[in-house]
Amino acid sequence: MELNVNRQVMESGENVAKELAAMFAARQILVLNLISSPGAGKTSLLERTLTDLAPEFRMAVIEGDLKTDNDARRVAATGAAAYQIETNGGCHLDSFMIRDALPHLPLDNIDILFIENVGNLVCPVEFSCGEDHKIAILSVPEGDDKPEKYPLLFNLASVMLVNKTDLLPYVDFDVDKASRLAATLNPNLNIFRVSCRERTGLQPWYAWLRRARAEKL
Amino acid sequence: MELNVNRQVMESGENVAKELAAMFAARQILVLNLISSPGAGKTSLLERTLTDLAPEFRMAVIEGDLKTDNDARRVAATGAAAYQIETNGGCHLDSFMIRDALPHLPLDNIDILFIENVGNLVCPVEFSCGEDHKIAILSVPEGDDKPEKYPLLFNLASVMLVNKTDLLPYVDFDVDKASRLAATLNPNLNIFRVSCRERTGLQPWYAWLRRARAEKL
Repeated sequence: MELNVNRQVMESGENVAKELAAMFAARQILVLNLISSPGAGKTSLLERTLTDLAPEFRMAVIEGDLKTDNDARRVAATGAAAYQIETNGGCHLDSFMIRDALPHLPLDNIDILFIENVGNLVCPVEFSCGEDHKIAILSVPEGDDKPEKYPLLFNLASVMLVNKTDLLPYVDFDVDKASRLAATLNPNLNIFRVSCRERTGLQPWYAWLRRARAEKL
Repeated sequence: MELNVNRQVMESGENVAKELAAMFAARQILVLNLISSPGAGKTSLLERTLTDLAPEFRMAVIEGDLKTDNDARRVAATGAAAYQIETNGGCHLDSFMIRDALPHLPLDNIDILFIENVGNLVCPVEFSCGEDHKIAILSVPEGDDKPEKYPLLFNLASVMLVNKTDLLPYVDFDVDKASRLAATLNPNLNIFRVSCRERTGLQPWYAWLRRARAEKL
């Protein structure tokens, strides 16, 4: 008598993320998952970074939004390859969506792939997209208490960009307090203060990008 | 022979929300579910509203946060009854959590109950807490494209408060454009421009609250 065991292997999001990470490693592509509240400046940061580093790196972007392809159009205007995922109400990107998006990008010609997640400080943190690093963006009008109130992102991110520093004179935001709270959660966090609008403070971020990319070679 | 059918009735979040709504109606309590991005100013709006309308209404607040009871302490300082729900990473409040919170509030002495949801423009919209109205708060540093990019909230809300109008001189935010986008999604939306920091524009919001409460009597 023969016993046939039909074991259904369910594909898990975690396994797909691992496969993506292995593929990105083989291709030496640095992959960064940008996470923030809505309107903290993810797209503005990309517009600046893609423009300023175009002479150095071949870069591409996967955009995540509930609706519209506004952001893909904004970053494509810099000359970078861009693909928009519309989640139709979904609150985060996951590894399945990233895998489906990759055929739309020139994978043989990418040094750095930015994934701009759905604007949400909570859900995107829990789903790996196969990235090397999570990048947290915190804009100063949101308040300096956010690392304490939304700790998981700041705990898992490699970088926290404090954005919109040009608004510091007009809001109650203590950069030292926010940095201290974030560093308590994550002593290895790299913290940079930037204003994408005024184009200030970006060089330390670019230096970090160069180092992170060099580590993939 | 007897057939015993054991039908397990699962309690659904939707049914609990309906029970809560019936109970609030019987007690003539107006219940408002405040939804916005992190740091858009939900707590500041409550601090102002609770202070200014204290002579008129008995008000209470249920606060939702992933971590900390900072917000409950802030609103309790106005004299209002306040109870903090810590979701421990959960991205929204639901009717089960509200039901569990109610024994901590003086239900016999409440005219208006505010539910300050977790800061998140996506997930809280899909879970009724038995409220009469959802109140959307959009702060101007977030950008005027948000109604288009996060349409469900603006579609279902009764009120959109455009907050932090004191920052309008320093950011690119077209109030008319944001209002037009939101009104396209929801022609019945009441739109008010406020600055909780400078205490401007609040009277139309208070007038709306008075009308909404009167409708519960």
